[in-house]
Amino acid sequence: MSLVAVGTVAFDDIETPFGRAEKVIGGACTYISLAASYFVKPVRIVSVVGDDFPEEMLDYLKKRGVDLDGLQIRPGEKSFFWAGKYYRDLNTRDTLDTQLNVLATFDPVLPEAYRRPEFLMLGNLTPQVQLRVLNQLKQRPKLIAMDTMNFWMNTAMSDLLKVIKKVDVLTINDEEARQLSGEHSLVKAAKVIHQMGPRYLVIKKGEHGALLFHRGEVFFAPALPLAEVIDPTGAGDTFAGGFMGYLAKTGDTSMSNMRRAIIYGSAMASFCVEKFSVERLQGLTPAMIRKRVQQFSDLVHFEI
Amino acid sequence: MSLVAVGTVAFDDIETPFGRAEKVIGGACTYISLAASYFVKPVRIVSVVGDDFPEEMLDYLKKRGVDLDGLQIRPGEKSFFWAGKYYRDLNTRDTLDTQLNVLATFDPVLPEAYRRPEFLMLGNLTPQVQLRVLNQLKQRPKLIAMDTMNFWMNTAMSDLLKVIKKVDVLTINDEEARQLSGEHSLVKAAKVIHQMGPRYLVIKKGEHGALLFHRGEVFFAPALPLAEVIDPTGAGDTFAGGFMGYLAKTGDTSMSNMRRAIIYGSAMASFCVEKFSVERLQGLTPAMIRKRVQQFSDLVHFEI
Repeated sequence: MSLVAVGTVAFDDIETPFGRAEKVIGGACTYISLAASYFVKPVRIVSVVGDDFPEEMLDYLKKRGVDLDGLQIRPGEKSFFWAGKYYRDLNTRDTLDTQLNVLATFDPVLPEAYRRPEFLMLGNLTPQVQLRVLNQLKQRPKLIAMDTMNFWMNTAMSDLLKVIKKVDVLTINDEEARQLSGEHSLVKAAKVIHQMGPRYLVIKKGEHGALLFHRGEVFFAPALPLAEVIDPTGAGDTFAGGFMGYLAKTGDTSMSNMRRAIIYGSAMASFCVEKFSVERLQGLTPAMIRKRVQQFSDLVHFEI
Repeated sequence: MSLVAVGTVAFDDIETPFGRAEKVIGGACTYISLAASYFVKPVRIVSVVGDDFPEEMLDYLKKRGVDLDGLQIRPGEKSFFWAGKYYRDLNTRDTLDTQLNVLATFDPVLPEAYRRPEFLMLGNLTPQVQLRVLNQLKQRPKLIAMDTMNFWMNTAMSDLLKVIKKVDVLTINDEEARQLSGEHSLVKAAKVIHQMGPRYLVIKKGEHGALLFHRGEVFFAPALPLAEVIDPTGAGDTFAGGFMGYLAKTGDTSMSNMRRAIIYGSAMASFCVEKFSVERLQGLTPAMIRKRVQQFSDLVHFEI
């Protein structure tokens, strides 16, 4: 089934306790589309870059079955740029620099072929841009997922709530779920957030895994304990890409398949963090992904 | 099979965002023995209290099949006392007061019947006291587990390493595993700690669950997402008590049974945090425990 993904395609400067990477490929939509491309083709992206964005990466995305018709390339302008520094525990990071560049005036335009997707992933962006995407759809997708962050809760709550009301799946981290709901207990937070619109709430906890809440049911997926975590950038987007890619591939939104999709998303995220930027997401094989999913199964297996 | 548990029996003052409890029953050995008593009888405890410790609690422990022959009751002295305050996230706490009282001069003496236990749980105490217990054993137990904390790593590392060398299972939290091993990755930390002695490493992550490492194999048990967490005090000890109690009941230290034991420990801990002090650990039934274990199974279940 068809998947449309909206979000940034960008450059990052990244500093972690294990090294630095300068002006590397980043952006939510890059991670989402790469991860999803292992499950479904085409992944249609809606984004914007300047003419500084490397041709080779665009070619690579096309080769992986990513449809770039919805990617605006602005001559004479620069791509979105983010610089961040991670602390020792890799769970906290500081933003050192944000240069909106092309993103400052981004007005998403969906090509005709994009307007009836069965699955839609709204990556983290201004709620207004997310809304403008929704308004161009000619048909309600089978499933709409959105990512957002505390920044929009602090600065654009009213618009944010409008988007949240229209989606099926909200993916946020635990602190954001607490902020959005005003509840400390994630069980209570989920109930409040369900009332806002999303039937499914995915709470991302980084190295502590992810929770899926739906109608009083809860599923927990661990993160895979890894010997080397080099760079967590993009792990949440990669998770979302694997999750939505798997759902779009199977076309099945039953809770048992959603559980599986969460595991596939977690498996893709576990690859992502093993190298800087999108490096580890290039050249994976179905066998490598299956093997990793099996590791998740072994990790939590017990019999009672 | 027989279980001996060593640790504090004490009073706590506890402040959480949800309330206060003053001079309530606490102590590692209290939590361990209560949790274990749901699986195996007798649980033989080695500890010390003053004559201020309530007779009714001692009677209750006896009624639950806890053998108090190894509990020293010191006339005219006061029991160990700890006061702590939890912050909003319940993951961090400050110690407000510690009064060692009877613990300052505690010299554990194992009654004859205690000297050949099949399972031994060394709760968090001075490493020297833990060593003195080990030195009184007439026979190597089938399994020795120990708990410890960063305080002993900072102040008594040399003695601590001597105890660690002699045990099969070490239970510590993630930050302590990192401190003890000098490795940030828990996978690498486990390898370093295995070299120090323990064949099994249990890393407790509070609301983020627990990991069990053994010979390159890793098992992850989530914490149960709860609507109400009132007081995390004693959750780690309750976990250890459920874990060792289940192992002592079954007498089976295969990895598949260790996985199950971790789940039983996690289930007991999930009860513990629902009320202040040991309140929730009184009056549980086997059916309630089975039901909760089933919830853990449902929580992580997926098919690939």
